[in-house]
Amino acid sequence: MILTVTLNAALDLTYRVPRLTPHATHRVTDVAERPGGKGLNVSRVLAALGHRTVATGFAGGGTGDALRALLTQESEVTDALVPVGGATRRTVAVVDAATGDTTQLNEPGPVVSPAEWHTFLGTYRELLADARAVALCGSLPPGVPVDVYARLTRAARSAGVPVVLDTSGEPLRRGLAARPDLAKPNADELAALTGTTEPQRAAREARRRGAHSVVASLGPDGMLAVTADGAWQAAPPRRIAGNPTGAGDSAVAGLLSGLVEGLSWPERLARAVALSAATVRAAAAGEFDAATYAELLPKVAVTELPGPAPGR
Amino acid sequence: MILTVTLNAALDLTYRVPRLTPHATHRVTDVAERPGGKGLNVSRVLAALGHRTVATGFAGGGTGDALRALLTQESEVTDALVPVGGATRRTVAVVDAATGDTTQLNEPGPVVSPAEWHTFLGTYRELLADARAVALCGSLPPGVPVDVYARLTRAARSAGVPVVLDTSGEPLRRGLAARPDLAKPNADELAALTGTTEPQRAAREARRRGAHSVVASLGPDGMLAVTADGAWQAAPPRRIAGNPTGAGDSAVAGLLSGLVEGLSWPERLARAVALSAATVRAAAAGEFDAATYAELLPKVAVTELPGPAPGR
Repeated sequence: MILTVTLNAALDLTYRVPRLTPHATHRVTDVAERPGGKGLNVSRVLAALGHRTVATGFAGGGTGDALRALLTQESEVTDALVPVGGATRRTVAVVDAATGDTTQLNEPGPVVSPAEWHTFLGTYRELLADARAVALCGSLPPGVPVDVYARLTRAARSAGVPVVLDTSGEPLRRGLAARPDLAKPNADELAALTGTTEPQRAAREARRRGAHSVVASLGPDGMLAVTADGAWQAAPPRRIAGNPTGAGDSAVAGLLSGLVEGLSWPERLARAVALSAATVRAAAAGEFDAATYAELLPKVAVTELPGPAPGR
Repeated sequence: MILTVTLNAALDLTYRVPRLTPHATHRVTDVAERPGGKGLNVSRVLAALGHRTVATGFAGGGTGDALRALLTQESEVTDALVPVGGATRRTVAVVDAATGDTTQLNEPGPVVSPAEWHTFLGTYRELLADARAVALCGSLPPGVPVDVYARLTRAARSAGVPVVLDTSGEPLRRGLAARPDLAKPNADELAALTGTTEPQRAAREARRRGAHSVVASLGPDGMLAVTADGAWQAAPPRRIAGNPTGAGDSAVAGLLSGLVEGLSWPERLARAVALSAATVRAAAAGEFDAATYAELLPKVAVTELPGPAPGR
């Protein structure tokens, strides 16, 4: 199975309003509730692709109960979330029906106690025994040590399980030092990490900081991979309009599934780009439009880039 | 005991953000959860004043469970909410820390089935047997007949229980025709009902439409009462700055408690105005600042207004 870790899972609410006006009162015309958090989105896409997947991390309170109920009702993801005393956070996406724009409000998440953190580490190590790969995804709730992804990466590497790291800021910086197999920042996160806005140079710099491979998402322009075997850029055949929320998580699912299936880098990138684009066409993060995926997959253009010799 | 009815109760969330910017992503710095809905606010204030009070209406889903837990943890209100299959709505108040302004997002509420509605009517009739007064408060969830407040008013009058009606729009218009003892619209609701923006004329018109007495809230200017015994205006000694959410509900609690204690109209109005102002100084609807209440109560100026002879 493929393991995903979401330390700061969320109950995602989407509110549709006729028009968002600051300081006014709005009657919400439509409410949608979904399981949220980057690792849960990755697992939902993996399950839809037919992979066995287990999601761990933390869940608590009434919001945590709602999240878990939705997760198991709506997908084949196995729930291995660890209970916490605090309540799982909510995120609220307010969609302005007049413009289609979204205003996002993200709660900070529950404070995780040292005892809860210790319980999680035990669960994580047990789950690694059956994992063919693990994805470490997203922001941290209060109370979790900032070097958490370095610790989880080292535990996975000791167990011989390949690690994909998808986070940002200090947790990314610390996590890279533990040498994950793959880091998947977007262009902004990569620039913040390296101080370089040129994606290829920034990706090579992120490799020097510890990641064996780096795949950077370039938004509608596709993805860039810099690996020990070479460097590639992959682009969709056309720009896809829609909601980009969750596109990065679908890319992680594409890369992970390609890894465990033994696909080549160009094949993994094509899958990641097609899944990302198909997610932009779907209603929600963690979902993708199957027809768009099938149509785009053979049309993704993957180009090998010149660069330093393999092995650097 | 004093009975309150909240057909569209809510789990009230308050989010503090540094500054609300449409179409941006916001990290919420502080989250507060409270039981919400006008009748529940009235009951919480009544309980804080030392009155026995029972709250009925509908509650369901995880949000309903959270609401009920908060209600009984934080107050002496007796919970007689009727379970429904749908989930209790949330309201989200987004407070902009830079300006202090609030942007409000209100979910519509669960659809109430005919069977659930029937169960509620039975519960309501049973509760009336022990009630000294009843307050019918707020908006209606989908599925509840628009003449609900007329039906509930007639049932209370048959049981000899005085009725206070605090709603707006069509439910107010229909409810008035069943001759509640008191209607408590604010100036805007009264103007929408009667087409008259002059509050005293509008209140007299609302009496003609069926309410035995009308108390209109005039915001920071206090309140106006038009009754069979005369008309009065009551004003706080100074303008009170703060958050007006829930001030109207506290006024209803003041009027209800004064009614069951047999106070005169001027005494009831003074209590309602002082409680309203003390709520503006409190953190949340359903709460009031006890020191402000004690200080203002003897200072509220109540003036008798000339008008048609008593009995009109």
